Amino acid sequence: MTTITESTITGDIRTRAAGARVASRELAVSAAEKRDLALDAIAMLLEERREQILEANAQDLEIASSMVHRGELDEPLLKRLDLSGSKFESVIDMVRSVRAQEDPLGRTQSATELDKGLNLFRVSVPIGVLGVIFESRPDALVQISSLCLKSGNAVLLKGGREAANSNQILAQVIAEASQSVAGIPEGWLTLMQTREHVRDMLNQEESIDLIIPRGGNQFVQYIMQNTRIPVMGHADGICHVFVDRAADLDKAVRIAVDSKTQYVGVCNAAETLLVHADVAEAFFGKAVPELSAEKVEIRGDERTVTLAGKWASVTPATDEDWGTEHLDYILSVKVVDDLNEAIAHINHYGSGHTDAIVTEDGVAASEFLRGVDSASVFHNASTRFADGYAYGLGAEVGISTGRLHSRGPVGLEGLTIYKYILEGTGQTIAEYQGEVRRPYTHRRLDADWCPGNGSGNGSP
Amino acid sequence: MTTITESTITGDIRTRAAGARVASRELAVSAAEKRDLALDAIAMLLEERREQILEANAQDLEIASSMVHRGELDEPLLKRLDLSGSKFESVIDMVRSVRAQEDPLGRTQSATELDKGLNLFRVSVPIGVLGVIFESRPDALVQISSLCLKSGNAVLLKGGREAANSNQILAQVIAEASQSVAGIPEGWLTLMQTREHVRDMLNQEESIDLIIPRGGNQFVQYIMQNTRIPVMGHADGICHVFVDRAADLDKAVRIAVDSKTQYVGVCNAAETLLVHADVAEAFFGKAVPELSAEKVEIRGDERTVTLAGKWASVTPATDEDWGTEHLDYILSVKVVDDLNEAIAHINHYGSGHTDAIVTEDGVAASEFLRGVDSASVFHNASTRFADGYAYGLGAEVGISTGRLHSRGPVGLEGLTIYKYILEGTGQTIAEYQGEVRRPYTHRRLDADWCPGNGSGNGSP
Repeated sequence: MTTITESTITGDIRTRAAGARVASRELAVSAAEKRDLALDAIAMLLEERREQILEANAQDLEIASSMVHRGELDEPLLKRLDLSGSKFESVIDMVRSVRAQEDPLGRTQSATELDKGLNLFRVSVPIGVLGVIFESRPDALVQISSLCLKSGNAVLLKGGREAANSNQILAQVIAEASQSVAGIPEGWLTLMQTREHVRDMLNQEESIDLIIPRGGNQFVQYIMQNTRIPVMGHADGICHVFVDRAADLDKAVRIAVDSKTQYVGVCNAAETLLVHADVAEAFFGKAVPELSAEKVEIRGDERTVTLAGKWASVTPATDEDWGTEHLDYILSVKVVDDLNEAIAHINHYGSGHTDAIVTEDGVAASEFLRGVDSASVFHNASTRFADGYAYGLGAEVGISTGRLHSRGPVGLEGLTIYKYILEGTGQTIAEYQGEVRRPYTHRRLDADWCPGNGSGNGSP
Repeated sequence: MTTITESTITGDIRTRAAGARVASRELAVSAAEKRDLALDAIAMLLEERREQILEANAQDLEIASSMVHRGELDEPLLKRLDLSGSKFESVIDMVRSVRAQEDPLGRTQSATELDKGLNLFRVSVPIGVLGVIFESRPDALVQISSLCLKSGNAVLLKGGREAANSNQILAQVIAEASQSVAGIPEGWLTLMQTREHVRDMLNQEESIDLIIPRGGNQFVQYIMQNTRIPVMGHADGICHVFVDRAADLDKAVRIAVDSKTQYVGVCNAAETLLVHADVAEAFFGKAVPELSAEKVEIRGDERTVTLAGKWASVTPATDEDWGTEHLDYILSVKVVDDLNEAIAHINHYGSGHTDAIVTEDGVAASEFLRGVDSASVFHNASTRFADGYAYGLGAEVGISTGRLHSRGPVGLEGLTIYKYILEGTGQTIAEYQGEVRRPYTHRRLDADWCPGNGSGNGSP
């Protein structure tokens, strides 16, 4: 068994990225069983090395807590960093849950007979090589590597420096289990350790197909502005809840409070509440006391200041508030005259992440769901459901507000693309473009057709 | 009826792009019937304005032919520029054939019950606003606008300056028919007239979602290097034909000759031929005389110089030849020892466009189709089939060698993305994440479920 050392998973980023490209081609044609075996081996080796991993994690925690004491880091970081207790089990469970997903590769997405004995298939394949930069949680490293492995992608990873020791040992365990036990090609996983590594990675457009940055607005903007490699992710999550004229006000209060307060620090939490003028007073009477009880500061437009001001002190909102992701106990609130004003406001100030309408009016709901140009649009549900796990994707590698490839929560399928496979019997284009042209049949083939099962002789 | 003048379809690009974004949101929710009506109106108005269009086209042709006489333009350009005769009918047919395609929008791609009364749908929507830069053929303007309109995308277009007059009137006719007759929102179509317009467009990342450059390598590279907007297309088409040990040599000759010579100036023409050593001599004996008859210059590796040199003069190939898109009667030829060497050569020197194997050995074919990392991989068929029309996509907006969103020929579906629609009955995330967690059901719903048909009450 090869010993996986630091040098097996890191090094000069240009070389590592080129090596990842080579490994990715081998990984792309690996059997599902092999990738699943690797995920089993990872789960087992994580269990086996639990003590060493928790020791490394304890070092990170020690450094981080003295930084917290010196006021250099925020307290909540410690909880996110900590892998001990039930967190460790949930990390292993997560590997097993990714393994349990259906193989996203080799799926025949379409099958078309172009002519007798000339069949075209569109089949799912991995994207290739990904660069993923994630926040301080070391469990994210395990989640992202598992998703990449299951979907046949090679990956270069960079985690938060607060988790450096934890990430180091986790990456080594994952490389060792996958490479030595299951024979996944060496080089499929690289751990980037410094900011220079990340900067180098941004220039490897020859070898890297996609960058997924997870983190705050400024960080994501920086990545987007400093690479020619496609970037998938989101800079902002400015999510809205619109309380329509026909809203059930109790539902509306429940959804607004949940969307804002259940966890304020996440991208799918609501930042702005829009309320139809016809129900504003009645709604504020129910909602504002509850929001105040949760210590939510309200920043309102003129009408909100007047109407909601009866139940709590309301700060006048500035234009900047409508376009700000507070990620805090702050809610921008605006009274609108109708559905169209709500839709226009969201399309203008929103970030295309997740927006919800509360209404019992099916027509209004349908107009909102069609008209709001966001990755996720909800009717009578909290914005907080915008999440790969809730959507049934197993796990997510990130949430995209872009408009290409994947939108919203991105799971295994979002890490794949397709190739076209054409199986013929010697056809030339001249036969189809000459003076006497053979016509194409363009007949859709049954779902059970796939490459290799009957082509080459024209029989079904 | 509004008169569509030059100022209705062009202007300051920043303003036009922002206007296109607004128009795109209206277009995205327009009924399929409205978009089809617009396509009908375009076909009719093209017919009605035939004389004026051909007059404008004649002006372009006159300028171009004097440039050809002065040696400033290549002769074949005149044919591509000319819209008269049967070309005009084929332009109108093309609009009707795009109209005849199924609506690519509003398709429910997946439907999942997250819990009773909480249903998630993934539904196709347009990308939004596209910037397309195309070659000198004015019929491309009609094709691209039709595809954009059918798929609900707004578009900024720039054609070759040789076709300036033709493009101007065609864009006016398309804008007039779609806007005045069918009520498609003004601003959905912009004609860019200068290089400054294109340069301005490359900076409108707020308003433009995707750029599709069609043209030569250097031009595409320039676009890719000068914008932060995602780019879809291909710089090179270095396509390979591999003649395997188990090839039927007559098929191999037919496919090699067709792939190379049927039309040398296109991206899916073969540039390199790889031949298994076991059959090289026999194959060259049949193929080289035919290639020579077609005036193909052969640039070969050492073994090819020896073996093929018996039938024609062979220039020794340089390393540069393996990575060059000749787009001419030149073929790089290499003898390889086995299938793996062929796959490795293609993955190293190819451009990920289209590569073919000729063999009667199903196992070798399958290994090639899996191992070659290209958008299109063919077995016993000419590389020239890599085309949206041949694939049954109706028409194509371009061919992509990228690995995100779309790969290979891109038709209507490639101009769409999706949004998630969640229909609930008042659910909050707290119910699913609290102490007593409600489990998700994550049940796949039948294909006939779509947003609005039964959600909100939990009944099927």
